[in-house]
Amino acid sequence: MTPSDDSGTGSAGAATFDREDLLRRFREVRERTVSLAAPLAPEDMVVQSMPDASPTKWHLGHTSWFFEALVLEAGRPGLPWYDPVYPYLFNSYYNSLGNQFPRPRRGLITRPTVAEVERYRRHVDDAVTALVVGAEEEEMRRLGPVIEIGTHHEQQHQELILTDIKHALAQNPLRPVYRPRAGEPGPHTTPPATGWSRFEEGIHTVGHAGSGFAYDNEGPAHRVLLPAFEIAERPMTNAEVLAFIEDGGYRRPELWLSEGWAAVQREGWAAPLYFEERDGGWWHFTLAGQAPLDPAEPACHLSYFEADALARWAGARLPTEFEWEVAAATAPVAGTFVESERFHPAPLPGTPGTHGYYGDVWQWTSSSYAPYPGYRAGQGALGEYNGKFMCNQYVLRGGSCATPRSHIRRTYRNFWAPHTRFQFAGCRLARDPGR
Amino acid sequence: MTPSDDSGTGSAGAATFDREDLLRRFREVRERTVSLAAPLAPEDMVVQSMPDASPTKWHLGHTSWFFEALVLEAGRPGLPWYDPVYPYLFNSYYNSLGNQFPRPRRGLITRPTVAEVERYRRHVDDAVTALVVGAEEEEMRRLGPVIEIGTHHEQQHQELILTDIKHALAQNPLRPVYRPRAGEPGPHTTPPATGWSRFEEGIHTVGHAGSGFAYDNEGPAHRVLLPAFEIAERPMTNAEVLAFIEDGGYRRPELWLSEGWAAVQREGWAAPLYFEERDGGWWHFTLAGQAPLDPAEPACHLSYFEADALARWAGARLPTEFEWEVAAATAPVAGTFVESERFHPAPLPGTPGTHGYYGDVWQWTSSSYAPYPGYRAGQGALGEYNGKFMCNQYVLRGGSCATPRSHIRRTYRNFWAPHTRFQFAGCRLARDPGR
Amino acid sequence: MTPSDDSGTGSAGAATFDREDLLRRFREVRERTVSLAAPLAPEDMVVQSMPDASPTKWHLGHTSWFFEALVLEAGRPGLPWYDPVYPYLFNSYYNSLGNQFPRPRRGLITRPTVAEVERYRRHVDDAVTALVVGAEEEEMRRLGPVIEIGTHHEQQHQELILTDIKHALAQNPLRPVYRPRAGEPGPHTTPPATGWSRFEEGIHTVGHAGSGFAYDNEGPAHRVLLPAFEIAERPMTNAEVLAFIEDGGYRRPELWLSEGWAAVQREGWAAPLYFEERDGGWWHFTLAGQAPLDPAEPACHLSYFEADALARWAGARLPTEFEWEVAAATAPVAGTFVESERFHPAPLPGTPGTHGYYGDVWQWTSSSYAPYPGYRAGQGALGEYNGKFMCNQYVLRGGSCATPRSHIRRTYRNFWAPHTRFQFAGCRLARDPGR
Amino acid sequence: MTPSDDSGTGSAGAATFDREDLLRRFREVRERTVSLAAPLAPEDMVVQSMPDASPTKWHLGHTSWFFEALVLEAGRPGLPWYDPVYPYLFNSYYNSLGNQFPRPRRGLITRPTVAEVERYRRHVDDAVTALVVGAEEEEMRRLGPVIEIGTHHEQQHQELILTDIKHALAQNPLRPVYRPRAGEPGPHTTPPATGWSRFEEGIHTVGHAGSGFAYDNEGPAHRVLLPAFEIAERPMTNAEVLAFIEDGGYRRPELWLSEGWAAVQREGWAAPLYFEERDGGWWHFTLAGQAPLDPAEPACHLSYFEADALARWAGARLPTEFEWEVAAATAPVAGTFVESERFHPAPLPGTPGTHGYYGDVWQWTSSSYAPYPGYRAGQGALGEYNGKFMCNQYVLRGGSCATPRSHIRRTYRNFWAPHTRFQFAGCRLARDPGR
Repeated sequence: MTPSDDSGTGSAGAATFDREDLLRRFREVRERTVSLAAPLAPEDMVVQSMPDASPTKWHLGHTSWFFEALVLEAGRPGLPWYDPVYPYLFNSYYNSLGNQFPRPRRGLITRPTVAEVERYRRHVDDAVTALVVGAEEEEMRRLGPVIEIGTHHEQQHQELILTDIKHALAQNPLRPVYRPRAGEPGPHTTPPATGWSRFEEGIHTVGHAGSGFAYDNEGPAHRVLLPAFEIAERPMTNAEVLAFIEDGGYRRPELWLSEGWAAVQREGWAAPLYFEERDGGWWHFTLAGQAPLDPAEPACHLSYFEADALARWAGARLPTEFEWEVAAATAPVAGTFVESERFHPAPLPGTPGTHGYYGDVWQWTSSSYAPYPGYRAGQGALGEYNGKFMCNQYVLRGGSCATPRSHIRRTYRNFWAPHTRFQFAGCRLARDPGR
Repeated sequence: MTPSDDSGTGSAGAATFDREDLLRRFREVRERTVSLAAPLAPEDMVVQSMPDASPTKWHLGHTSWFFEALVLEAGRPGLPWYDPVYPYLFNSYYNSLGNQFPRPRRGLITRPTVAEVERYRRHVDDAVTALVVGAEEEEMRRLGPVIEIGTHHEQQHQELILTDIKHALAQNPLRPVYRPRAGEPGPHTTPPATGWSRFEEGIHTVGHAGSGFAYDNEGPAHRVLLPAFEIAERPMTNAEVLAFIEDGGYRRPELWLSEGWAAVQREGWAAPLYFEERDGGWWHFTLAGQAPLDPAEPACHLSYFEADALARWAGARLPTEFEWEVAAATAPVAGTFVESERFHPAPLPGTPGTHGYYGDVWQWTSSSYAPYPGYRAGQGALGEYNGKFMCNQYVLRGGSCATPRSHIRRTYRNFWAPHTRFQFAGCRLARDPGR
Repeated sequence: MTPSDDSGTGSAGAATFDREDLLRRFREVRERTVSLAAPLAPEDMVVQSMPDASPTKWHLGHTSWFFEALVLEAGRPGLPWYDPVYPYLFNSYYNSLGNQFPRPRRGLITRPTVAEVERYRRHVDDAVTALVVGAEEEEMRRLGPVIEIGTHHEQQHQELILTDIKHALAQNPLRPVYRPRAGEPGPHTTPPATGWSRFEEGIHTVGHAGSGFAYDNEGPAHRVLLPAFEIAERPMTNAEVLAFIEDGGYRRPELWLSEGWAAVQREGWAAPLYFEERDGGWWHFTLAGQAPLDPAEPACHLSYFEADALARWAGARLPTEFEWEVAAATAPVAGTFVESERFHPAPLPGTPGTHGYYGDVWQWTSSSYAPYPGYRAGQGALGEYNGKFMCNQYVLRGGSCATPRSHIRRTYRNFWAPHTRFQFAGCRLARDPGR
Repeated sequence: MTPSDDSGTGSAGAATFDREDLLRRFREVRERTVSLAAPLAPEDMVVQSMPDASPTKWHLGHTSWFFEALVLEAGRPGLPWYDPVYPYLFNSYYNSLGNQFPRPRRGLITRPTVAEVERYRRHVDDAVTALVVGAEEEEMRRLGPVIEIGTHHEQQHQELILTDIKHALAQNPLRPVYRPRAGEPGPHTTPPATGWSRFEEGIHTVGHAGSGFAYDNEGPAHRVLLPAFEIAERPMTNAEVLAFIEDGGYRRPELWLSEGWAAVQREGWAAPLYFEERDGGWWHFTLAGQAPLDPAEPACHLSYFEADALARWAGARLPTEFEWEVAAATAPVAGTFVESERFHPAPLPGTPGTHGYYGDVWQWTSSSYAPYPGYRAGQGALGEYNGKFMCNQYVLRGGSCATPRSHIRRTYRNFWAPHTRFQFAGCRLARDPGR
C-alpha cells in the first residue's frame, strides 16, 4: 500500500506529524502484535498450514523488517542490516527490495527462534524511536508518512496472525485453544428475516477524500452513477447458511458460479470452513476451541463463491463495493473488533434494524478489485503495496472481529481471491428493486 | 448465452422469424463449420493439446448436439437421441442437460470417427430443416430464437476450431500448415506512433438495446458515468512488442501484475505465444506455418497480463470495456474476419488515423467480466450460457481474424481468464488526460 | 536389448545368417504389425491414453525408425533420413541416438498421418530388403544380428499396440470393439483347486545358453542354488479373484505391500483393471468389447501388487523367476498367442494338470529385474535396450495372448513397474514346502 | 520389524531376559534419544522439511507410543491411553493399531508441545519400568522380546532424528549449526586407489543365525551360491565423486539407470545432496554447519542412482548384499558411530588396506530388498515392521556415523527407495574377476 495523496505526502497539513502521537501509535501497534502472539507456544509460531498463510514468527519478523527496510532504510550503503539474511527471510513480495525466500516454504524456517525475533523487534522499536526523537523537521516530513503506513501495515498482519493461526490449529486433531472464551449463554434468539434499505438512482462520490490516513487504493475519490438498489439491513446468519445446506445448496450447480462449482467438487465443500456436523448437530472450530454453532451469528469463513451462491439461493445478489459504501455512509463504525478479544463474530441482535456494517465479519462484494479512475501506483517499494494485486480478487468491506478498530474506515478496500475461506468473511445481500 | 430480452423472446416483432431467412443462415453457418475443418486430416481432428482447447471433432459434434438438445429436444420422453451416448460426450458444461464427459479427456475419444460425426451433423441438419419447414406458427415463436442462438453459438465454436487447432499444430515439430497463405510482400511499413482520441467526462448508455440478436450478457443497456479519457487510435503492434522485449519487459517485475509476474516465471514467458527467436530474427507460428514476424501487424496472442504490462511500460493503461464501447461507436465494423480466409491479423496501414476496432485481434480491456446492473441469467440450460462464468475473467472487445463478420457487434463481450494466450488477442491503449 | 553373445555377434555359427530366412522373417513381422493396426480408424491410432502407453501410429513409426537408425544407419554423414524430424519424433529412449520428443506428449502429434507413416514403413521395408539382397558377406555379418533384433523388437511393439489400444478404447464410454470375437458358449466349468508341483533343493543353471536368439538380459547363463519349493500347476483364475474381492481383499491392508496399499487407496482399486460390477454381475472390457466375466479364465490385468496380495491371501507367495524357469522346463511352449487372434486369454480346462506356463497371461514373479552375474550392457544404442531399466521393475515370465509365438521362450524376461495393470498379466503361485 | 525366531519368541534360552540388563538398555536408549534432541530449540523440533522426514518432536512421541501400544498395551479394554489422540498422532504405519494422522502433515502439529511430549516420555519410562519390575516370570517371557525390539526400534529413530533435522536445517539460508565440531586440521591425505579383495565361487550361508537380537528380515539364514567376485577394500571417497563430476558424470545419460537419469533431470542433480560449489571450491552442509569438503572422506548423501552411476563410471558395479555380507565377515565392527558425537563420516586413512565396512556411511548394494527364502512376516502389529516394505527399495549395509554402535551387525539390512539422498549413504564397489 502507498499512502493516498492527501495523507502525508500530498497535503501540507498532513505533513506535520506530531512526534508524540506518532510514537504513541507506533508503540501501541507494536505492543498489540506481541500481545496477540502471547497465548502461543514457540511450537505454534513456526508452522505454516498452507501457502496462503504464514507462521506467527514470520509475521513478527516481517513487520519489523518493514520498518527496518523503509524507515531505518537499512541496506543502503553504509547502513548494515540487523542480520544480513533477515531481509531475504522476511521480505514478503517487494521485488524492488530484493529477493524473497519462497513463500510456501516459510514454515521450514526454524531460526531465528521466537526469542531471537523478539530481540529483533525490540532492536527495531528502539531504533525507530531514536530516529523519530532525533530527526530534523525536514526528515520528519519523509519519516512520518512511512511510519504511519508501517503501523497500518502491521495492523493488517495482526489480523493475519489470527486467521493464520486459526487455520494452523484447526489442522490438529487435538483442536488446541488459542484463548478460552468467557462463559456465555447458549444459542441466541435467531434474528428475524432481514429488512432492506432502498437507495434511488443517483450519482455518488466514492473513495477516500478527507484528511486522515487511507491507502492509495481507496482513491482517487470519484463520482459513480448507481442505479437504484436495495441492500439488506444485516449480514447473512448461520441460520440462513444451515437452511442453504439443508436445501441442498452445496449439491446444486445451478446456484454456483462455474469456478465455484469446480471448487465445491474439487475440495469437497459441504459447509463453510471450520463447520463440522457431529451427532446430528453443527459445531465449528473457533479460536476458543471447538464450539456448538450459534445460528444467530453472522455467517463466517465463506468464500466469495459461497457468498455468491447463498445470494443466488436467496433470490438476491451481492452488492457492489460502491453500493456498500453508499449504504454504509450513515452506519456507525461499531461492532466486534480485535480489541474486544473475542476473536469471533458476535451474535446478531434478535431485533430488526440496521446491523453489522463494521466489525464481526468482512462482507464480500461483487466488485472485482480494480483501480479507481486516475489511480496510479507509486514508485518504489510502496508502489508494490496494492496496485499489483488488482486482478482476480474481490473486494470485501467493513472489517472483522480480527481487525483493529483504528484500522477500518468506510472507504477501506480489503481483497482476496474468490476461493479464500480462512478469513473472517461473510456477506450482506443486495437486490434490484422491482424484481 | 441466452438471447437478450429483445431478441426474439421479448418483443412481438422479433418473434416473427422469417423461415427462409432463418434456414438460410442456419445452412450457411453449418456449412462454414464444415469448411473450416476441410483442410484437416482425421488425425488432426482428434487431438486436444491442453485442457482449455478441444478437438475439432468435438466441436463438430458439440455444435450438433446443441441443436439436438435444445431445438430437436431429443432426450425428452419419447424422443430418442441419435445416439444415447452422444449427449454425455458432446455436452460441454450444461449441468441442467446432464453429465459431461470430463473436458480434459476429450482428446482420448476416438469414436465416433470424423465420418460418423459428419453423418450426425447431416442428420441434425435435416431434422432441424424439416422441423422448421413443418412447424406451426406458434411453435416457430419458440423455435426461432433457439435456432438463432444456435447459429451464434456455432460461430463461437468456429473461432475456437481455429484457435484450438493452431495450438495443437504448434506442438508438432513438423509445424504443419493448416492452409498456405497466398504470397505476400515481406515486412510492411511500420505504422507511426499512435494518435489518441479524447473523450470528455459524460454519461453514456452502454450495452445492447436495439433490435437484432445479442447475448444476454450484453444487457440490460444502462447508463454509466465515464471520466474523461483518451484512447489509442490503433492497436499495439509487433514492433512495439519487440521494443518491450528489448527493453527487458519480460524480466522487470515492476511492469507486471503480481499474478502476471508469477505466470512469467512459472511458464518461462519471454515473448508472446508462438513467437520464436532464431538466427537473430523473430518468427512466429501461424495457420500458414512458420513465418517471419511482421512488425506492422497488430500484436497478437497476448495474455491479459502481457497486455497490461505492455500498457504500463508504455505509460498508459488498458481501457475499460465501456471506454472501448463509447470510442468504438463511430468506427466501421470492418477489418479482417474469418471470411477473408487469411486466419491471421493483417498489417496495419503505415498512415495515422483510427484503425482496427473490429476484426484482426480482440482487444483486452481492464474490465473484469461482470453482470450489468439488473442482469439476471435465464432459467434452464440457456441460463448457463454466460452468467456462471462471470468471475476471474476479463472482457475483450471487437472480434478477430477468426471471428465471423456477422457474429460481432459493438456491444459484444468476449471473455477469457487473464493468463489465456491462445486466442487472437491483442490490445489498444488508453490513458487519463492530463497525466 | 542387445543380442546375447551367442546370437550372432558372438559365435561363428550364428554369424552366418541365411538371407532368405532373414528376409522372410523380416517381412512376416513387418506385415503382422500392419495387420494388427488394420481394424483401427486413423482417429484411433493417434491417441495416447496415459504416459505409459503410446499411439498405434507411433508404434508403426518407431519400429520403422529402429531399422532406419540401426540397419540403414541413416543420419550418418552423407546418409539422409527419410525425414529429418522423424528421428526426433520416433526415437523412444536411445540417448545415444539423439533427443526424443517428450513421451507423455506423443498423442499430440497428428502428422505424419497414418498414411504417411505407412509410406515411411514401405520405404524402410524396401531399403532394408535391397540392402540385404545386395550386401557383401562381410557386411551381412554385421547386418544379420541387427535385423534379427529389429524383428524381435518389433514383436514387442506388436504386443504393446494391443495393450495400448485396449487401454485407449476403454476410456471411451462407447466401448468400441477392436475385433469382434467369434461366438462362444457362456461361462465354462470352473477349474478345480490347483495342484502343486514339488521341486527339491538343488543347483540349477538358469538363463539363456543355447543357440537361437535371446536378449542380452537373459544371460549369462549361470548356476543358482534354489531351496525346495512348490509351484502351482495353473495360473490363478477369475473365480479366485472374485473370491478375493468378496473376502474384502481390496479393503484389508494386511494383505498388501505398503506401496500396493497406497496404490489401492490413491487409485481407488476395487477389482483388476477393466473389471466392472453391474446389475449384480461382473463384466470386463476386452478387445472384443464389454463382456461377462468368465470365472474359468486366468486372472488378467493384475498389477504386481494385486498378484502379491492374492498370493498372500491364498497362503502362498509368488515364485522367483528362477523357480518359474526351473518349473517351466518341461512344459510345452503352447497356449494362446497373438496368432490365435483371440486377443484375450482362454478359459482354463476344467480338469487338473499342468497348464498355462506359456501364452494367455504373463506371470508376475517376485524377482526384481536385475542383471545376472557377469552381465554387462553393450556399447552404443543397443546397450540402452535392457540394462538401464534394471531398477524398480519386476520380472514376468511366459508370454501372453498378445505375444507372438516365435517371440517367447523359457528364459525370456519381461519386466514392468509393480503398479502396472494394462498388460495381460496374471500370476501363478508358489510356496515353501512344509509350511 | 519382528524379532527373528531365535531372538526371544523362538528359543527357550533367549526367553530368559535379565530384568536389570533389559532395564539398563531401555534407560540408555531412551536417554540417548533425549540427548540427541538437546541441542535443538522447540522451533526446530516441529518442522517437517519433506514427506520422507519427520519432526524431532514426532520421533520423540512415536518412540514412546511404540512402548505404550505394544508393551503397556494401552488401548485394550480397560487400559486408558495417556492421551486418546496420541495414538492417532504418533502411530506411523501400523494399520493393525488404528488410523494414522497423514504422514506428510506431521509438521503442522504444534501440540503437544515439546515439553508435553517430554512429560509423555517420562510417563512411559516410568510405566515400563514399573511393569518390568513387577511382572511375573511368565509375563516377562512376553514382555522381554517386545521391550528389546522397542529399544532397537528407537535406535533406528535416533538415526532418523539426525538425518531429518539435517535436512530441515539445510533448508534455512542461515545454515544453523546442530552441534559445532571440535577443531580439526584441514583436508586430509587423499587415500590411494582402492585395492580389491577377491572371493572365489562358493556356497555361503547368509542371514542371521546365532543368538542375539536380529530383525525378522535378516532370516532365515540360508545358503547361496555366489560366483567369484572382487570387492573394493574401502568405500568411494569425495575425491572420486569430484572426479566423476569433473568428468561430466551428472550430464552423461549412458552412466545412469533410466530412472536415475530421469531424477537427475527432474531434480537438477549436479552433485550429491548438501554439496555446494562456491568461489571455485566445494563445500557441504554438515550438522556442524557449512564446511569445506574433505576429499578424504567417504562419499556421502548419495542416492542409489548416484552410487550405481559412480560404479559404472569406475568400470565396476555395486556388490550384492550377499557379496557384502561374505566380504564383511572378517572386518571388525568398528568405525564412526553416533556415540562419537561427530555426526559426520571421518576421513579415510591415507594408507591402503581394508577400511570402513561398518559405521561412517551406509553402503548401497545392488540387491532389491526382498524376503529371504522361507521368510514370512509375523501376525499382528510387529508383522508390519519389515515385510510390507519389500518392494522398490534397495538394501544398504554396515551402518553410519548416525547409527548406534549396538544397533548394527553383519546381517543387518537397511533399505531405502533408490532416489533417497538424505541418509548417510555411500558405496563400496565390486567387480567380476577377469573383466
